[in-house]
Amino acid sequence: MSSLLNADAKAEQDRLKRAAAEAAVTLVEDGMVVGLGTGSTAAFALEALAARIAKGLRVSGVPTSEATAALARRLGVPLTDFAAHRRLDLAIDGADEVERGTLNLIKGLGGALLYEKIVAAASRRFVVIADATKLVDRLGERAPLPVEIVPFGLEPTLDRLADAGLAPLLRRIAGSGEPFRTDGGHAIADCRTGPIANPAALDRQLRAMVGVVDSGLFIGMAAEAFVGTAQGVQCLTPQ
Amino acid sequence: MSSLLNADAKAEQDRLKRAAAEAAVTLVEDGMVVGLGTGSTAAFALEALAARIAKGLRVSGVPTSEATAALARRLGVPLTDFAAHRRLDLAIDGADEVERGTLNLIKGLGGALLYEKIVAAASRRFVVIADATKLVDRLGERAPLPVEIVPFGLEPTLDRLADAGLAPLLRRIAGSGEPFRTDGGHAIADCRTGPIANPAALDRQLRAMVGVVDSGLFIGMAAEAFVGTAQGVQCLTPQ
Repeated sequence: MSSLLNADAKAEQDRLKRAAAEAAVTLVEDGMVVGLGTGSTAAFALEALAARIAKGLRVSGVPTSEATAALARRLGVPLTDFAAHRRLDLAIDGADEVERGTLNLIKGLGGALLYEKIVAAASRRFVVIADATKLVDRLGERAPLPVEIVPFGLEPTLDRLADAGLAPLLRRIAGSGEPFRTDGGHAIADCRTGPIANPAALDRQLRAMVGVVDSGLFIGMAAEAFVGTAQGVQCLTPQ
Repeated sequence: MSSLLNADAKAEQDRLKRAAAEAAVTLVEDGMVVGLGTGSTAAFALEALAARIAKGLRVSGVPTSEATAALARRLGVPLTDFAAHRRLDLAIDGADEVERGTLNLIKGLGGALLYEKIVAAASRRFVVIADATKLVDRLGERAPLPVEIVPFGLEPTLDRLADAGLAPLLRRIAGSGEPFRTDGGHAIADCRTGPIANPAALDRQLRAMVGVVDSGLFIGMAAEAFVGTAQGVQCLTPQ
């Protein structure tokens, strides 16, 4: 019974993710270069984009992960790269938490936070898509904060995160137990921060730490969030 | 004639490097775990360390590059890693520029800046060794500032460095012309900053940039600098 309920909840969540993704993909215009996010919600956006391409839309995409690149190829979404396009017109991506009001984000549960941030930063407009369960009053309420770190010197870097009270947990691959590696070859420390009072200050503090490549905090980057709710898709802008 | 003079100057510089390296290696005590730097001056330290090991000193080293690891093996210096030792007792490394007074550094001409900084940060005491030509009044006077960047999104990251007035030049491998890759798989942008008025602020600015892994600025890290001069080895401490 419980697993049936869970399956229903999952189906409903997927419906909201898909609705948000489809709303965001209406922003894509002919000739655009589009940043392609990673994760389950971003995959719905890729499907919606592929459907528009099948009807004649001409776009090319810069993927934020090898997984997304593979999915794009399967769906027939043309890919390009930063060597050809230094600025993207639009990026669409999911998030693990979206803070109400600021639209600051936690990203990186999927392990692609660094490339996602590079793509978002290179885009004229960065749009977040999510179902309503991702909305929080304070970042860190539910999701751990992924921090991408250099594998060399992993142990002292984890010590430094622990000393800062961030309770880091080295992400491991389920099954093998081996440390997880990002597409860029880095490790991830999932930090159990609890609600974060000042995300911008924490992001600065993390980036200043030796051995830290980047944090999963996306501060002031999202221009809009499309959020799928039971009452329809809400379009939020930063307040 | 000129190449003979240059050879003489090189031999004299090597003599000063070696003298500084040997002075620093006298700090190594039995049982210590030592961070092993990268570059020509650090190689002299490794030779001096190997000579002491041959006479019975028991130490182990954490290398800052694959090149240094290979040299250590050749010289018979036992190696260890951060999994075994989260804190090192002492690190000895060269620098491209040493600022008089502050002992702030520019490092990274050898391409090992990230691992060198991780090792220095994990060490209780970080000692710089250099010949007198490396001493400057202002960092950036002569050396370019190496900035380690993520290969993905290289082009927008270089644009961002250029927009900040840092005149970045992507480091390439002599001969092949292929982009240089660090041991960690990153690229390097050599920035022609000119004299840097506020190195700490520039380091913070660089680390806050999306796509930047770390900068070659080592701020407040060196506890001492051993500098080989024609008048002997000077031991400097931060003023």
